[in-house]
Amino acid sequence: MDIKILTIFPEMFTGPLTTSIIKKARDKEILKIKVINFRDYSENKHNTVDDYPFGGGAGMLLKPEPIVNALENNLDLENNNQEIILVTPQGKTFKQEDANLLATKKNLTFICGHYEGFDERIRSYVTKEYSLGDFVMTGGEIPAMAMVDAIARLIPGVIKEEDSFKDDSFFGGLLEYPQYTRPRVFRDIEVPEVLLSGNHEHIRKWRRKESLRRTYKRRPELLMNFQFTKEDKKFLEEIKKEEK
Amino acid sequence: MDIKILTIFPEMFTGPLTTSIIKKARDKEILKIKVINFRDYSENKHNTVDDYPFGGGAGMLLKPEPIVNALENNLDLENNNQEIILVTPQGKTFKQEDANLLATKKNLTFICGHYEGFDERIRSYVTKEYSLGDFVMTGGEIPAMAMVDAIARLIPGVIKEEDSFKDDSFFGGLLEYPQYTRPRVFRDIEVPEVLLSGNHEHIRKWRRKESLRRTYKRRPELLMNFQFTKEDKKFLEEIKKEEK
Repeated sequence: MDIKILTIFPEMFTGPLTTSIIKKARDKEILKIKVINFRDYSENKHNTVDDYPFGGGAGMLLKPEPIVNALENNLDLENNNQEIILVTPQGKTFKQEDANLLATKKNLTFICGHYEGFDERIRSYVTKEYSLGDFVMTGGEIPAMAMVDAIARLIPGVIKEEDSFKDDSFFGGLLEYPQYTRPRVFRDIEVPEVLLSGNHEHIRKWRRKESLRRTYKRRPELLMNFQFTKEDKKFLEEIKKEEK
Repeated sequence: MDIKILTIFPEMFTGPLTTSIIKKARDKEILKIKVINFRDYSENKHNTVDDYPFGGGAGMLLKPEPIVNALENNLDLENNNQEIILVTPQGKTFKQEDANLLATKKNLTFICGHYEGFDERIRSYVTKEYSLGDFVMTGGEIPAMAMVDAIARLIPGVIKEEDSFKDDSFFGGLLEYPQYTRPRVFRDIEVPEVLLSGNHEHIRKWRRKESLRRTYKRRPELLMNFQFTKEDKKFLEEIKKEEK
C-alpha cells in the first residue's frame, strides 16, 4: 500500500511512522509512506498556505492552490483504486468498518488541516471525509496517524495473524474477560483460583461469564444485537443478580 | 498541567509532543510532559514487561510490576487532583466532555499498552479508562497523543481564545458552513456571489442555511435536540425540498 500524507507539520510524523509495526511494514516494503509538506506547493513568494475568508469571520482558511498542487504533483488523480481523505471534524466518525474498507485500497492520501478551516473547493478533490470522534483537536495529523495505524495492521503480512485475531475478537462481540499473568500474588491481590486450576472447562466458563459481565457493565449496547447461547443467558441472569 | 505518559515506545512521542501548540505550551511551561519507559521499572534482569496469561490463551499480557513501579516512582498516588488513565479498547469512548473534565486536573497520567492485554491488577491503580473509538489500533500511544492534544488546547493560555471559540462553535450545534478564500476563481470554480456582496445580512442567512444543510445531510442526529429559531425552521423546509 502506498500512503501519502499532506501536512504543514511533517515533523509530527517522525516518531509514529518510524516505530513498531509501521516501521516493520515499511522495512518490509508492504507499506510505503510519503509525508508531503503542502507549503512547498504554494504559488506565492512567502509560501503562505492560508488566507482570510470571503464574507468575513474569525480565523483563517487553507487556500486551495497549495493542497491541490500537492495532490496533482504527487498522485495520479485518475487512479480508481485510491481514496483521497480529508481529515475534518465534519467527516464521518472513523470506525472499524472504514479501516476494513480502506485496507483494501492500493493508494491512500490523507489531507491534514491544522487549526483552520479549508476552502470549500478542496473538497471537490476529496473522496472521503473522516473525523476521529466528537472531540476537538488542533489538527488532522494525529487523527491521520490513528487511521494509518488502524488500516496498516489489517494489511496481510503486517502483524502476526494470532495477534490480529486476538485484538479483533471482542469487536462487535463481547469485551475481553479479565486477564492475569505472573506473579500469582501481586501486592496482596491474588490471581483468581480458577485460572490456576488447570480445569479447562471451568476456565472457559469463568472467562465467558466475566466477558459478559464486563460488557453488561461497560458497554451494554453491545448486548442488544448479540446472539446469546443458552449458557450465556444463564450467566447473564446470574450477573444481573450479582451486580444489583 | 503535569502530564506523564507510560509507554514502552517513548520514541513514538518525539514528533507529536514537540510540534505546534504542544511545543508552545511546553515552552511557556503551561504544560509539562514526561514520557516514561516502564520497561526501565521491570524487576527482572531481561527487562521483560510481558508474560503468558494464567489459564492459557493466545498472546501476552503486560505484567503488573513494571507499570505499578513506574507509577509509584513518578507520581504521588495520594494526590486527589489527578487522573490515572488506562488507554484500552475496553474504556469509555473519549468525547469532548471528557476532554473538558480532564483539562481541569493538575496531573494526568496515561498508561499505554501496545498490542497486548494488561494484567487485571493494574486496573486497581487506574482512575479512568478511555478508548478512542470502535476501531482496533496496535497500541495506546496514538490515542494518548490524541487525548493530550484535545485536553491541552483547553488549558487557558495554550491557544488563542478566538481559535478555540471557532473550533468549538459547531460542536453540539451545527456543522460549519462552506468557507472560501482567495482566489475568487480556482480551476473554474467560483466563490458563491453572496460572499462577495458585502451584504452582511445576506451572508449571515446564507451561512446559517448552509450550516443547517450540511448538518442535515451529514449528521442529522445533531438536529434531534437542536433548538431551532423560526428562521431555521423555514430554512430547513427549503433544504428538504431542495435536497429531494
